[in-house]
Amino acid sequence: MSDLIITNALVVTADDAGTVFPDGAVAVSGGRIERIGPAAQIGLDAREVIDARGMMLMPGLINMHCHAGDSLFRGLVEDLPLEPWLRTVWKAEGAVLDRETMRLGATLGFAELLLGGVTTTMDMFWYPDQTVAAARDVGMRVATGGIFFDGRGMDRVDGSARLAEAAAFFEAFGAADDVFAGCLPHGAYTVGPETLVAAKAAADANGGFFSTHAAETRAERLEIEERYGRPVIRHLDALGLLDARTVLAHCIWLDDEEIAILARTGATVVHNPMSNLKLASGFARVPDMLAAGVRVTLGTDGAISGNDLDLWMALRLAATLHRAATLDARAVTTGQALAMVTSNAAAALGAADRLGSLAPGKLADMILVDLRRPHAVPLFDPATHIVFSTAKSDVRHVFVGGRQVVRDGALVLHDLAVTLDQVAALTPRIAASVQP
Amino acid sequence: MSDLIITNALVVTADDAGTVFPDGAVAVSGGRIERIGPAAQIGLDAREVIDARGMMLMPGLINMHCHAGDSLFRGLVEDLPLEPWLRTVWKAEGAVLDRETMRLGATLGFAELLLGGVTTTMDMFWYPDQTVAAARDVGMRVATGGIFFDGRGMDRVDGSARLAEAAAFFEAFGAADDVFAGCLPHGAYTVGPETLVAAKAAADANGGFFSTHAAETRAERLEIEERYGRPVIRHLDALGLLDARTVLAHCIWLDDEEIAILARTGATVVHNPMSNLKLASGFARVPDMLAAGVRVTLGTDGAISGNDLDLWMALRLAATLHRAATLDARAVTTGQALAMVTSNAAAALGAADRLGSLAPGKLADMILVDLRRPHAVPLFDPATHIVFSTAKSDVRHVFVGGRQVVRDGALVLHDLAVTLDQVAALTPRIAASVQP
Ligand SMILES: [Zn+2]
Ligand SMILES: [Zn+2]
Repeated sequence: MSDLIITNALVVTADDAGTVFPDGAVAVSGGRIERIGPAAQIGLDAREVIDARGMMLMPGLINMHCHAGDSLFRGLVEDLPLEPWLRTVWKAEGAVLDRETMRLGATLGFAELLLGGVTTTMDMFWYPDQTVAAARDVGMRVATGGIFFDGRGMDRVDGSARLAEAAAFFEAFGAADDVFAGCLPHGAYTVGPETLVAAKAAADANGGFFSTHAAETRAERLEIEERYGRPVIRHLDALGLLDARTVLAHCIWLDDEEIAILARTGATVVHNPMSNLKLASGFARVPDMLAAGVRVTLGTDGAISGNDLDLWMALRLAATLHRAATLDARAVTTGQALAMVTSNAAAALGAADRLGSLAPGKLADMILVDLRRPHAVPLFDPATHIVFSTAKSDVRHVFVGGRQVVRDGALVLHDLAVTLDQVAALTPRIAASVQP
Repeated sequence: MSDLIITNALVVTADDAGTVFPDGAVAVSGGRIERIGPAAQIGLDAREVIDARGMMLMPGLINMHCHAGDSLFRGLVEDLPLEPWLRTVWKAEGAVLDRETMRLGATLGFAELLLGGVTTTMDMFWYPDQTVAAARDVGMRVATGGIFFDGRGMDRVDGSARLAEAAAFFEAFGAADDVFAGCLPHGAYTVGPETLVAAKAAADANGGFFSTHAAETRAERLEIEERYGRPVIRHLDALGLLDARTVLAHCIWLDDEEIAILARTGATVVHNPMSNLKLASGFARVPDMLAAGVRVTLGTDGAISGNDLDLWMALRLAATLHRAATLDARAVTTGQALAMVTSNAAAALGAADRLGSLAPGKLADMILVDLRRPHAVPLFDPATHIVFSTAKSDVRHVFVGGRQVVRDGALVLHDLAVTLDQVAALTPRIAASVQP
């Protein structure tokens, strides 16, 4: 007898072959997928059976770049280019953030993501242990770890203490099932070469990932060229930081050689289209990266550059934006886009054996998407529906490791109303923080 | 005593001054707004009182370009550039569309739009009387009228009979409160100069609008240049078709002189960003048009180039896309974007006195947007929230002319389940229509 069977769903496995079971089912035991296939074959022998008629079952989405805690500053600073915008945001963060407010912001952000069907998020923010606590509050997997930033950060920790903090994070969470531990320096323009190298060494020593912002703006590219005599990706490559465990957010301002370096080293790119549009950062060369064989994934970035955390929006944009930029309707295919939030992201986390598709033996991170919506009919091809029509609000049920964490559009483990009220109470103080 | 008072809402009037009432109310009588202001001033003296605590009250959005009937073909043809894509779509339309299926498709599309807070839609499709019937089924205002297309259309009507059809439409609906009647030739590449001129004359004679596709693709621009020795907007101008009652969808492939022509003539541009991205049409020069003083509005286009009808998505893209295209975070401001779906659209319909903002004497086309959502807190500036965070699924209640047509996310006048089932039943025939 299985723990759970979800039956009568349109099952989209998101495996490499694009396998779909129009009237399908999945059996789950011990948090993993036991069997998957036509409903008649899977049967009903389980402690809990969910009839998913009118719904689509698919893997939970993986968000590869976020700053969930920044949800507290959503909409606070608007209509500025990245550098002055970042200075103002940092002023607000400095005034408002402590361990408690950080956890509140992260809980708000993770609640939004989980309700939208995101079951794993890579998050870069101060107080990474609080990031984990917030993710556990709602029941989401999180990839995070020690933050690196030259000088004093918002957490009042000196740069010199960062390595110890990162080590403590690996110690505390390196073995946890629901945490992917790594090292996350902010960027090559805010973290010096020695610290970048030390952070990568710490990540490698602990079998963790390494993630940083890279080549987000033209100004950043010019600054790194001026300082180090080479553009961002060549700089990171020269420092020996690029390999299959490296995850680089944005990668907009690249030349052809840098794209070749990303392909050769196996580093992962996180494309964050909404952030890139709103902050006027530019268009990442996604079709060129795909053609070169670079592994491309997707992120929401933080809610201050969004202003929401909508990975479905990122998916839609990833599949459409580059068509207009290149005037080529085949610039990014439906299948390429879908892989960005599923299999490519799982591979980037070193978890291709556990995440990214629905298959026997994999973790049961799954979502049920309502198809009884006006934008969901007619439905000719499920992948097309996922990429071009599905909205975050279509997600009705979410399971992480077989445990239901969203039921009928509401969090199971956490009372969202409490978080909304706490954020509302904090709002006047946040607004005051940017007053001159 | 008023008919209806909605109270305790965050009221965003969307008037030119950006007036907001943080704890506001509106009183409605005879389908029009009677009074609007702080809740304490408006009081509770009405036959029906709605307590809108935790919600934002704002004008219903106006969608200035759509083909709602094409919702039947959502996702049927993918990953092709505009011209071969259009040929395949037309094959499917030819095989499937008749008066009944057209009305079904339009009802599906209008249901989606109305549930998403769109209270008026300009729609271009065969059988315009059926378009009106579908809009009335759900309770939305519609701007439509005689279609012009050289040769035989999907409705098996000859080009020569189009003028009579347009006249009949004005006769039937010219005086209706819920219909804006006009003439809608498909485009300068599918409709010859004489017919374009005749359609505009018919529109003018009846006080109606004139709307057509214009400069959507590079191929269209080249074809018009080859045929007529001038690009699209200059061609339309030379024919005398451009004035304040003219509405042009897309306007992507324009030179500086053509932008100046649009500004000088007072013609309205409908920007359809999602369609332009997905069909690889290009980026409309929206910041240049705004700087020149062109009236810019927004559209969803049809669900075959979307693949949904999400005007909030169009709004978000209008405010962000051009920042990345120009590398200028101030390329389109929040206020400019909001005007595109409210006041600019009302002016384009010749209805600035009745629609586009919440003010005494205007039609009570209003929506209530749920603010108890994780992406809606904190909320510092309502316009920022509308443009950058609000999702179509946040719309809980919709009123058209003071009548509630959406209640708690469900249609009041129409049973959506019936339409979904009818479309599902038709789906195999639609799929078969494009098989070789
Ligand atoms: Zn970031
Ligand atoms: Zn169109």
